[in-house]
Amino acid sequence: MNKKIITRFLAVSCVGGGAFLTGVYVERRKFQNNQQDGSRNIFHNQKTLTPKPALPIFGTVSAATAVVPSTNNNAVSFPGRVSEIMKYGFPGMDNIRSYSDYVLSYDRRNRVAHWTFEHLTPQSVEANDQVDRSKSDFKPDESIHPYFRSLNSDYKGSGFDRGHLAAAGNHRSHQVHVDQTFYLTNMAPQVGVGFNRDSWNRLESYVRKLVRKHKNVFVCTGPLYLPRKEADGKTYVKYEVIGANSVAVPTHFYKVVVCETSDNQLEMESYVMPNQKIDNDTPLKAFQVPPESIERHAGLLFFDKISRQKLRSINGKPV
Amino acid sequence: MNKKIITRFLAVSCVGGGAFLTGVYVERRKFQNNQQDGSRNIFHNQKTLTPKPALPIFGTVSAATAVVPSTNNNAVSFPGRVSEIMKYGFPGMDNIRSYSDYVLSYDRRNRVAHWTFEHLTPQSVEANDQVDRSKSDFKPDESIHPYFRSLNSDYKGSGFDRGHLAAAGNHRSHQVHVDQTFYLTNMAPQVGVGFNRDSWNRLESYVRKLVRKHKNVFVCTGPLYLPRKEADGKTYVKYEVIGANSVAVPTHFYKVVVCETSDNQLEMESYVMPNQKIDNDTPLKAFQVPPESIERHAGLLFFDKISRQKLRSINGKPV
Repeated sequence: MNKKIITRFLAVSCVGGGAFLTGVYVERRKFQNNQQDGSRNIFHNQKTLTPKPALPIFGTVSAATAVVPSTNNNAVSFPGRVSEIMKYGFPGMDNIRSYSDYVLSYDRRNRVAHWTFEHLTPQSVEANDQVDRSKSDFKPDESIHPYFRSLNSDYKGSGFDRGHLAAAGNHRSHQVHVDQTFYLTNMAPQVGVGFNRDSWNRLESYVRKLVRKHKNVFVCTGPLYLPRKEADGKTYVKYEVIGANSVAVPTHFYKVVVCETSDNQLEMESYVMPNQKIDNDTPLKAFQVPPESIERHAGLLFFDKISRQKLRSINGKPV
Repeated sequence: MNKKIITRFLAVSCVGGGAFLTGVYVERRKFQNNQQDGSRNIFHNQKTLTPKPALPIFGTVSAATAVVPSTNNNAVSFPGRVSEIMKYGFPGMDNIRSYSDYVLSYDRRNRVAHWTFEHLTPQSVEANDQVDRSKSDFKPDESIHPYFRSLNSDYKGSGFDRGHLAAAGNHRSHQVHVDQTFYLTNMAPQVGVGFNRDSWNRLESYVRKLVRKHKNVFVCTGPLYLPRKEADGKTYVKYEVIGANSVAVPTHFYKVVVCETSDNQLEMESYVMPNQKIDNDTPLKAFQVPPESIERHAGLLFFDKISRQKLRSINGKPV
């Protein structure tokens, strides 16, 4: 089996250089399509551009990481999972990492992810005797270059929680899945009491409950660094950085959710919460914002394979 | 000719999805190689991974941008130029744009490039009667999604210059080349008097003069948003944003230069300048910093196809 993996490994390596350039090409082409047909639906009429589920590149990478033993705790293979998770498009294309049950893009400058992407199903969120989150350890991702890698020591004594972006409770179908949500690439400095342990957790629980009604729920989560007008009349972005590796403390976090309904419709909800103590009585609806406002500030496009016109609702309102 | 372009266009499109994922794979593999051989020399022993000069993907894109007429002022084709410019590696892989004589990566969140990359030769920096910079207009790059595109109106009245990252004076061999340095993707808000028009310009001129001695000079230029300790003892990143599109005002700018010497050696110099009025008598040498310190703060790796151990000198000191 190892031999088979290595052969595939080399085959993929050979196209690396050109492929990388092609990625850029695709990105440019994407926007041209948008301009041409006036829609946000990027790949809609271009089946040739869709990522191939038959090509489990990320799976191969995971299995072949023998040279990085500490990140190679994924002895189980989950082929095709990436194309399932990323069904509705990548929000951006920077430093993407694929774990066994979620995908993220890492911001090497801020040492926090740009975004994480999850695909929730009844099976993934259901409690499971075989899976125990207390067995999972927070650990650095050694596939990130040491210059840009966040460490447990960066958080220690900072006063901030190591807050999950892809929530641990969303990945209960396998111990490997929950373990991999504890990579520090999936963490951001979050206010503990009143945010991570309270209102942000309420939002995560709410999203999990959506799975009871809709069997497939897609969730994109990430940080924001929002500008603010100061007394001098000028507008500034300002955020703390912690630890020897200057890990950024986001001013806000976003969550954009798409549910596939039983009658094959799509419903979107999008939330922004400030990274601060929030009154637990504040209804989650108070944090809903138009998805476009998150996109502009994050520099990302969410679910861009779906035309917004084709959604049944956004934040509960018909489109 | 149009037909030929479109055919090539489609051929490239077909591998888009997989290619994009492969890019990620390459990125991960790169770092594994670093760990294995303890060097920074990523592609050194892997010719299969080197971008293929025979595959002018960017050239094809430029020629095929008929759907975006305003960015299609490049009627001339410059095949293979990208692989020449990027000979020593891409500093990062986010939202890359290739123009006729330089390459950049665009930061969609800050609306300023992450980096620009240039390859200077005696021909490219020499004054040329056929090329007139006063004919060039500052213009938005319409290949950038409107959510993330900077406009002339963002700079108007801000008090900041539209400062070139890839300098106009480095691209004098063709009117198209100099014109394309005026895309707003290549601009950053710079303090005018004392910086853009003075000390930063001194640095640009100095780099151009290096071409007299060394025939091939590679230059990577970009913004920094450096953290600072404040009175409360905590460290913050803080920067102004200007205009309706919240264009970031970098706190500093960097320039990393590699010269190919006549005896086939490589010499590196790296500079950081604060985006503020600088005394014109300050020698340029005072702004030299170790390249690693820029890499950590920028989230980038410069000239990563060259092992630092193989450079003859860094900032004038033998390695």
